[in-house]
Amino acid sequence: MTKKHNFNPGPAVMPPFTVEKTIEALKDYGGTGLSIIELSHRSNEFKDIMAETQALFTELLEIPEGYSVLFLGGGASTQFFMIPYNLMKNKAAYLNTGSWATKAIKEAKFFGEVIEVASSADRDFSYIPKDYEVPADADYFHITTNNTIKGTAIFEDYDVDVPLVADMSSDIFGRRLDVSKYGIIYGGNQKNVGPAGATFVIVKEDILGKVDREIPTMIDYRTHISKDSMYNTPPVVNVFSALQTLKWFKSLGGVPELEKMNIKKAELLYNEVDRNKLFVGPAVKEDRSRMNVCFILEDEYKHLESEFLEFAAQKGMVGVKGHRSVGGFRASIYNALPIESVQALVDCMQEFEAQH
Amino acid sequence: MTKKHNFNPGPAVMPPFTVEKTIEALKDYGGTGLSIIELSHRSNEFKDIMAETQALFTELLEIPEGYSVLFLGGGASTQFFMIPYNLMKNKAAYLNTGSWATKAIKEAKFFGEVIEVASSADRDFSYIPKDYEVPADADYFHITTNNTIKGTAIFEDYDVDVPLVADMSSDIFGRRLDVSKYGIIYGGNQKNVGPAGATFVIVKEDILGKVDREIPTMIDYRTHISKDSMYNTPPVVNVFSALQTLKWFKSLGGVPELEKMNIKKAELLYNEVDRNKLFVGPAVKEDRSRMNVCFILEDEYKHLESEFLEFAAQKGMVGVKGHRSVGGFRASIYNALPIESVQALVDCMQEFEAQH
Repeated sequence: MTKKHNFNPGPAVMPPFTVEKTIEALKDYGGTGLSIIELSHRSNEFKDIMAETQALFTELLEIPEGYSVLFLGGGASTQFFMIPYNLMKNKAAYLNTGSWATKAIKEAKFFGEVIEVASSADRDFSYIPKDYEVPADADYFHITTNNTIKGTAIFEDYDVDVPLVADMSSDIFGRRLDVSKYGIIYGGNQKNVGPAGATFVIVKEDILGKVDREIPTMIDYRTHISKDSMYNTPPVVNVFSALQTLKWFKSLGGVPELEKMNIKKAELLYNEVDRNKLFVGPAVKEDRSRMNVCFILEDEYKHLESEFLEFAAQKGMVGVKGHRSVGGFRASIYNALPIESVQALVDCMQEFEAQH
Repeated sequence: MTKKHNFNPGPAVMPPFTVEKTIEALKDYGGTGLSIIELSHRSNEFKDIMAETQALFTELLEIPEGYSVLFLGGGASTQFFMIPYNLMKNKAAYLNTGSWATKAIKEAKFFGEVIEVASSADRDFSYIPKDYEVPADADYFHITTNNTIKGTAIFEDYDVDVPLVADMSSDIFGRRLDVSKYGIIYGGNQKNVGPAGATFVIVKEDILGKVDREIPTMIDYRTHISKDSMYNTPPVVNVFSALQTLKWFKSLGGVPELEKMNIKKAELLYNEVDRNKLFVGPAVKEDRSRMNVCFILEDEYKHLESEFLEFAAQKGMVGVKGHRSVGGFRASIYNALPIESVQALVDCMQEFEAQH
């Protein structure tokens, strides 16, 4: 079996360390005589796993006092409605930078007025709008920091006067953050943290409890905060695997080191996209994602799309096809993807260019 | 490492087949060169896993036409509010048979009037009430078919004139069912199906779409039905492992065979509880659960509680302690628990009796 170069957009490449440790834990968790999937979530062993995962999240992201780290079910899509359920009194502000932001906006409209402060829909979500105002009376301001489908990203921690809520499903741990600027940071684990099935939510406790509506128990963040994210049975093995990835991040030197590696990987690939006569990257350069590198064929080479995909597949590349809604190509180069895989893709693009 | 006898109440003992196949899939899923936790949920490989899991659920439970099988996040606790969100117009009927039913009732009250048709709280939830009427104008009738904490169960598929909704978290696949009698059957996977992190929901499609309230996308069962339970990223490895358990169930002879094994295991243990002079089972005999065998020490031996727990632990028993809210002992003997483990516990009880 040849090891593949895994550019899947999520679920995505995982560190070999995470895979190995999960296999070990499935055989016998820490000498308990039980597989990790047979371990009670009320056991001391699992309480330790959860506590360590929360502590490492806190350490790696330098999360200040007053925040809780939760691991919930239902994916980021569930957060799209939990956020307004918990935070929206009358109206909320949203920045529309793509497909996921649009979905978040749709759910918020069930709970009140949504002010779309700006949108990049006018140019096919190829850039991040920068010139807009967030209404001072908004209950919160929601952004999507990395847009997986069109390959744009926000690299700044915005200063706003209302709680800042960020979907970081696809770039968490990818760059240094000032968490104190945020009210909530959330995302699905399956791109940068661990297996699909757990959703991380970093929540500033003092922004909660301000709405009048009644909140069902499982939707209320305070339920999960008060029970250390173990109000009900958490996704045990998914949290365990996430912990392994965090340990691996720490062993590499933490977020500052990951950021350097991500910048290097992204430059390597964008340089080739810009140099290669066959390809072009539609996203505005200054807003280019370091996580999802989207590129298409120049008009005169458009007929080569399926040929390139097949060529790349033969070279062991997986997941290079663009999102089904846009076509073209997308290389997802998350934290766990080694630079060797990016180099292999670059080589592949150069070889393909030489043939045409 | 000695293999343990795992009586954990959930997450619980899994079939060795499930554990082995999950380890194999973590190493390399079906020759793809990727670990199962790196596999895209949009890949043909995962689409096949999901389709096969739904098909085997349908086959093993003989689910008729007109039902969908979903695998969602958030546990059964999330279903406690999703059910009234989707089904309750004005009022719903609930049978209160214990702690989980009480929690389900609490969530339903956020959405309308709850008629508690009967409750066994008067005798510490030690029996299943049978003499009550379900109002003809209730939007649905909710039951908990197995009560893990006090060890009682319903073995009948009730005939009612409104949609019957059943929490079968702890007894799914444990006995033959007439699914056509139910509107919704749901539960967390972690006791009888697979690793924690996936929730099964079997839903009759024609009971949906009758409420006036707006339903956020992720809460609306119709969203998940229309996308074959892949509207958003499902818990990939958790669904994969569940599929392995279903395959193992089928290899044993399916639900009729599991039911026979469960009756045999339960009889073996209850016979010992009834015979042994130290122990007593508080649940009414005809309502005794075949999944969670709860027993306590006779009054004169009450001081031996921690001694018995230690004695059992030395013999390799895990998870025999009663729920923290009730004390005593609870042996969870789910589908995957071998009868050898039950026999080992019986031996242990006899040896302990001989010592006192």
